[in-house]
Amino acid sequence: MIDFKAFFEITYGLYIVCSGDQNRGNGFISNTVFQVTSEPAKFAASCNKNNFTSEVIEKHGHFSVSVLHQNTESVTFGRFGFKSGKNFNKLEGMNVKYGTTGVPIILNDSLAYLECKVVRKIDVDTHWLFIGELVDAQMLDDNNKPMTYSYYRETKKGVAPKNAPTYIDKSKLDRLTESVKSGKHKCTVCGYIYDESKEEIKFSDLPDHWKCPVCAAGKEDFTEV
Amino acid sequence: MIDFKAFFEITYGLYIVCSGDQNRGNGFISNTVFQVTSEPAKFAASCNKNNFTSEVIEKHGHFSVSVLHQNTESVTFGRFGFKSGKNFNKLEGMNVKYGTTGVPIILNDSLAYLECKVVRKIDVDTHWLFIGELVDAQMLDDNNKPMTYSYYRETKKGVAPKNAPTYIDKSKLDRLTESVKSGKHKCTVCGYIYDESKEEIKFSDLPDHWKCPVCAAGKEDFTEV
Repeated sequence: MIDFKAFFEITYGLYIVCSGDQNRGNGFISNTVFQVTSEPAKFAASCNKNNFTSEVIEKHGHFSVSVLHQNTESVTFGRFGFKSGKNFNKLEGMNVKYGTTGVPIILNDSLAYLECKVVRKIDVDTHWLFIGELVDAQMLDDNNKPMTYSYYRETKKGVAPKNAPTYIDKSKLDRLTESVKSGKHKCTVCGYIYDESKEEIKFSDLPDHWKCPVCAAGKEDFTEV
Repeated sequence: MIDFKAFFEITYGLYIVCSGDQNRGNGFISNTVFQVTSEPAKFAASCNKNNFTSEVIEKHGHFSVSVLHQNTESVTFGRFGFKSGKNFNKLEGMNVKYGTTGVPIILNDSLAYLECKVVRKIDVDTHWLFIGELVDAQMLDDNNKPMTYSYYRETKKGVAPKNAPTYIDKSKLDRLTESVKSGKHKCTVCGYIYDESKEEIKFSDLPDHWKCPVCAAGKEDFTEV
């Protein structure tokens, strides 16, 4: 039987993949960005066909990759990882630079970025693999470490959204973890579990302004499991 | 101008990608293995067209991925990362398991493995991207951490071989580092630099049985730079 724990031994970083122009842009959090050739340097980014960003990359033919650092704020995960930009502008109020191709690049919580021109779009069933030739690459912060997917899962207790290539269905994950007991409250936005047995404060005693540590959703977005 | 330092902020693991059967197999060290779809689970592996393993994967239609742990021996990097298996059997003497598809799986220095059936072969110029549907996945060692590419570079002082998607030409890397001074000896097998200014022993005083800490090449494989 396939042991899903082995999936978590594959190492990934975490990135905001972004596309569009000055009028309208959109981005999402991805862990599957990687270099595919050295000369010329080309990078691949996997994007769910249902993600609004897929549409935007197809339209504009460019994408940027912002490398998230280890101190990335929960609100960044909430905004770019668990919400769709179809009906709201995720870039509004963010620190955005426009690259040499005009593509928006998110600078918040980022330590470096890449800017790529799409040269191939490969159909891998539920996802597109966009292959981009590198146009520009810059460092933003030499004194921070990139956030890895394992750090996000283990230290920040984060989970993958449903559209991610690395998403694992809850029924499979349950086989890996203890059966769910009372005293657990689940964030309906990102899936984070507040487990009273591991916390000092009961969920009901948390202050009203308390936010989900992963996606910054409010207390009202939690349901008891 | 493109800042190549940004390339090193993309996070990767390190793996032995292997193919073949009980008669003849071959494997190489890869850092570009990643999941591309969730349901069914499919993984991509990038492989230089000149790598012997590319031929073997094409012939057999399956590949295995062994996830290397942080304590991986230098000889493993030397054997699978910097030598071609065209004229010698890399699997001889190794701890090999044959998977459900008959594909060899390297168990040395590995904490988990995946076994995949190739469903697509994508041409990305110098490299093939093999897309494999997962057949099996198993944990081998729960008490170790996966080796990351940054750990390999920063702690083990390892470099990428010429066929790797993430290889950076030395003339570009030199712009990132100090200009080369006397007292530096370079491993002609893997590119590791023994820098006397950072070591307690002069290169010429090292014992004859001393080996390159990255690829285990002998002292005679070093040249002064």
